[in-house]
Amino acid sequence: MNTVILLMVCPDGRGIVAKLTQLVFEMKGNIVDSHQYSTDPGGGQFFMRLEFCFDSMPERAALEAQILPLAESLGANWQLHFSSVKPRMAVAVSKFDHCLVDILYRVRSGELAVEIPIVFSNHDDLRSLVEGAGIPFMHIPISKETKAEKENEILALVKLNSDFLVLARYMQVLSGDFLERYGKDVINIHHSFLPSFKGANPYQQAYDRGVKLIGATAHYVTTELDEGSIIEQTVGQVTHRDNPASLKRIGRSLEQQALAEAIRKHTSHRIIRYKNKTIIF
Amino acid sequence: MNTVILLMVCPDGRGIVAKLTQLVFEMKGNIVDSHQYSTDPGGGQFFMRLEFCFDSMPERAALEAQILPLAESLGANWQLHFSSVKPRMAVAVSKFDHCLVDILYRVRSGELAVEIPIVFSNHDDLRSLVEGAGIPFMHIPISKETKAEKENEILALVKLNSDFLVLARYMQVLSGDFLERYGKDVINIHHSFLPSFKGANPYQQAYDRGVKLIGATAHYVTTELDEGSIIEQTVGQVTHRDNPASLKRIGRSLEQQALAEAIRKHTSHRIIRYKNKTIIF
Amino acid sequence: MNTVILLMVCPDGRGIVAKLTQLVFEMKGNIVDSHQYSTDPGGGQFFMRLEFCFDSMPERAALEAQILPLAESLGANWQLHFSSVKPRMAVAVSKFDHCLVDILYRVRSGELAVEIPIVFSNHDDLRSLVEGAGIPFMHIPISKETKAEKENEILALVKLNSDFLVLARYMQVLSGDFLERYGKDVINIHHSFLPSFKGANPYQQAYDRGVKLIGATAHYVTTELDEGSIIEQTVGQVTHRDNPASLKRIGRSLEQQALAEAIRKHTSHRIIRYKNKTIIF
Amino acid sequence: MNTVILLMVCPDGRGIVAKLTQLVFEMKGNIVDSHQYSTDPGGGQFFMRLEFCFDSMPERAALEAQILPLAESLGANWQLHFSSVKPRMAVAVSKFDHCLVDILYRVRSGELAVEIPIVFSNHDDLRSLVEGAGIPFMHIPISKETKAEKENEILALVKLNSDFLVLARYMQVLSGDFLERYGKDVINIHHSFLPSFKGANPYQQAYDRGVKLIGATAHYVTTELDEGSIIEQTVGQVTHRDNPASLKRIGRSLEQQALAEAIRKHTSHRIIRYKNKTIIF
Repeated sequence: MNTVILLMVCPDGRGIVAKLTQLVFEMKGNIVDSHQYSTDPGGGQFFMRLEFCFDSMPERAALEAQILPLAESLGANWQLHFSSVKPRMAVAVSKFDHCLVDILYRVRSGELAVEIPIVFSNHDDLRSLVEGAGIPFMHIPISKETKAEKENEILALVKLNSDFLVLARYMQVLSGDFLERYGKDVINIHHSFLPSFKGANPYQQAYDRGVKLIGATAHYVTTELDEGSIIEQTVGQVTHRDNPASLKRIGRSLEQQALAEAIRKHTSHRIIRYKNKTIIF
Repeated sequence: MNTVILLMVCPDGRGIVAKLTQLVFEMKGNIVDSHQYSTDPGGGQFFMRLEFCFDSMPERAALEAQILPLAESLGANWQLHFSSVKPRMAVAVSKFDHCLVDILYRVRSGELAVEIPIVFSNHDDLRSLVEGAGIPFMHIPISKETKAEKENEILALVKLNSDFLVLARYMQVLSGDFLERYGKDVINIHHSFLPSFKGANPYQQAYDRGVKLIGATAHYVTTELDEGSIIEQTVGQVTHRDNPASLKRIGRSLEQQALAEAIRKHTSHRIIRYKNKTIIF
Repeated sequence: MNTVILLMVCPDGRGIVAKLTQLVFEMKGNIVDSHQYSTDPGGGQFFMRLEFCFDSMPERAALEAQILPLAESLGANWQLHFSSVKPRMAVAVSKFDHCLVDILYRVRSGELAVEIPIVFSNHDDLRSLVEGAGIPFMHIPISKETKAEKENEILALVKLNSDFLVLARYMQVLSGDFLERYGKDVINIHHSFLPSFKGANPYQQAYDRGVKLIGATAHYVTTELDEGSIIEQTVGQVTHRDNPASLKRIGRSLEQQALAEAIRKHTSHRIIRYKNKTIIF
Repeated sequence: MNTVILLMVCPDGRGIVAKLTQLVFEMKGNIVDSHQYSTDPGGGQFFMRLEFCFDSMPERAALEAQILPLAESLGANWQLHFSSVKPRMAVAVSKFDHCLVDILYRVRSGELAVEIPIVFSNHDDLRSLVEGAGIPFMHIPISKETKAEKENEILALVKLNSDFLVLARYMQVLSGDFLERYGKDVINIHHSFLPSFKGANPYQQAYDRGVKLIGATAHYVTTELDEGSIIEQTVGQVTHRDNPASLKRIGRSLEQQALAEAIRKHTSHRIIRYKNKTIIF
């Protein structure tokens, strides 16, 4: 079923839901799913996800023209998505392939409805895996000295032909400058239960600390390393018998699941980012 | 914050959400939370939970009078609840006290907002526990021969002064006749991961089968034993080292959690029963 | 590190662990790991897994000659495994590829230490996936009429060149006659939380029953359908919003995890089958 | 069944298990359960837990005399426990009662085999709960100024008549001086998934960070706050709808489970502390 998804954020107030759903009714839409959330009912911030269908799907421009006046009167930020349009997901990898393999399988099996226009990497190891799936692969090695220049190259690659970027165990830190110029969502998978074990080598850190559960965290990337808003977290049991190697093995599944679930929620337009948090409908 | 909760089920159709939320707006309510679900968007059954507050809370009669015409035009079944009114929960127990102890603690700590007008049991063992909490306790032993008569006694006890009944490891099967005459929701905790291990002695059954996970299931009671619609399920790991005794120990926590969560959802009016399933908002 | 693994089952009695570990000491082995379990200490059945290494690894025959007299005096069943020898795992599939894809990845990444001599299927769909991984693929369609004959064909294929057989969503029931003649372990992944939802279409069954958790079960195959001893069970949360299609999606991950974990335990010789249960060290 | 539990740590070497189990055999013991672990087989640290029973239980002195020579020759640290001897557990609380209530229930139901000689608190709120359970309660308020003196008071209370101390949401930090002079194990429940959210107000910290899972951690107390070796961790799902208050509610169950499980493992002598980690058999 083809649907339209409206995401909206505005100051809370009485009658907003009525106005929005009335608008959908007047546009001859049929509401399929609706979710709302207020940080502080009556006085805080209001969030809504409305999913609706039509007997005959209108043009985007026509819908936007109808929504705009109400949205402006509410002082709202809003986005309109069509379930029939597959988001274009650029992917960055390094040498570890488990997240990439998992994503490619889920895309191929139809579980993740995305287009992958490009996979880029600072190593050449995963080229055949990517090209074997019929996806262009670009090897962009990065050193400290070439970082600015290489990030320009990446930007040229993804700025126009992707809607968001997934770091599927990409072992480079993207600069704040890059993030700003890209201007779209970037999702990272961190191999720990954030905020525990930020930074490098989290499985070694987890081993050193002797934890009994390890985790993985999918989050939006911000300029502060591993501080972006969290989308999904998974967790698994470990014991004193585990070592950094077995933690990595257990962690691979946790990373795959957290990242896949984050991509699924992001691409079904279920997430609204607000301050350093995610509202997930 | 005092709120009003409207639960509604009706045939799906265009504009229902708009009409309902418009009504809330006209009643000068402010929507705090809304959830909807359709079995088949456009053509199936429509379910909604609307929670709203007022600057000045109206009388129930006034609200009902305003909702009634719309509800009738939609062909809806509906209920109206006030968050300020604590549901009255009758409780039945036998000899095991772990679920009762847990419920009493959660009520006392304010986590479960219910009144407990009565606890009844087919054994006298838990009298002091119940009376020590300031709650009337009634010992109603039941034998095969006295069942009809004793169920009448129970009915007299709970029919008028309870809104629902919780079987907190009550080891008697209530008759279909009792359920019909009581006419309100009855929640049971079954000590297995239903539909596995229905009937008696599920931990022994689980042990005999050599499962690696055991569970507990909170469900509404129907005339078919352990077949009522499921509210909540919990699960825990076991190994070959576990025996029926340790399964019981592990299971106690699972039962407590499943039952407490089911009561919490039921008493916050988040559940709509539909056919043999639960819609949980 | 190359190790030897001794699995042993015998009637319990005093001094068994001492005798076995003394034997390892006399053979100049160094115990790396040991586990034991008794169904009933002093009087029941005794199970042991001893893993030991050597400065210089002896021949199998030499080890067996040293173990045999003690094992016979204990009335023990026993197996000797070498960690350096990769078990040969035949795999059967039908049309669903998620378990196969997952297994192939884990083998390729070194997580599962097995050889795959052959994959056979009653459909031809997964041929290129298998052959692309450099593994022989055999298409053996089966109908009711040809079953006996086709099972002979399968037997010829796997009897000599595999140590165990994995049914990775193989949608045919192997006959008792086949199981007996094969005479080695067969592992199946059932897409439900056994003993719930045996037989066909468990996700539809789960949907119809309205469960709040679904699961997957890896188990050894016996002549009674879905009744073999359980190795591993996984579980995931679902809601009323899920339908048979989304249950399948959620279930795929659960199946992959349960099956991979079962293969890992089986091939690291951590499982002893006893009656209808598994002892997992 | 009454058993003896031997916990031992020594440098790894060939033949240790044989020597220990031979000793048990010579003492006419029957091994019920045995676990071992080496940090680095052949060259690291060796850990063993041996549980054995006797037809006629010997005196502690007799057992110790037999174990001592072997233990000394191995350079081992060791402890001998009798399952028939209930450890004496002192408990410290402040105002939150959920962990205490849970512990008292599990002791009363026989799930935790401990004696509780004393509960002390820096507040008087939980006196009736404790005394109602027939346990002495001591109110020892502590201020910055009186800390040294009050810790002396606590020490006098617990030094001789307890085997270990549990901080069941005790909101005071015990000084290094106290820990040293007490000289026995102290278990704390921290209401976060350590090492995330150390220190005060972890639920507020978790809320501020927008995590999707919260946890609880039971750990041994050392002089470094929330840095002691971890025994048990539990975890639960949360969403953007949760606030610090609901995180606390969800967390209460997690804390109860983690603490109870830690006490159960500690008092069944399944834990060996090694450096900043726990070996749990």
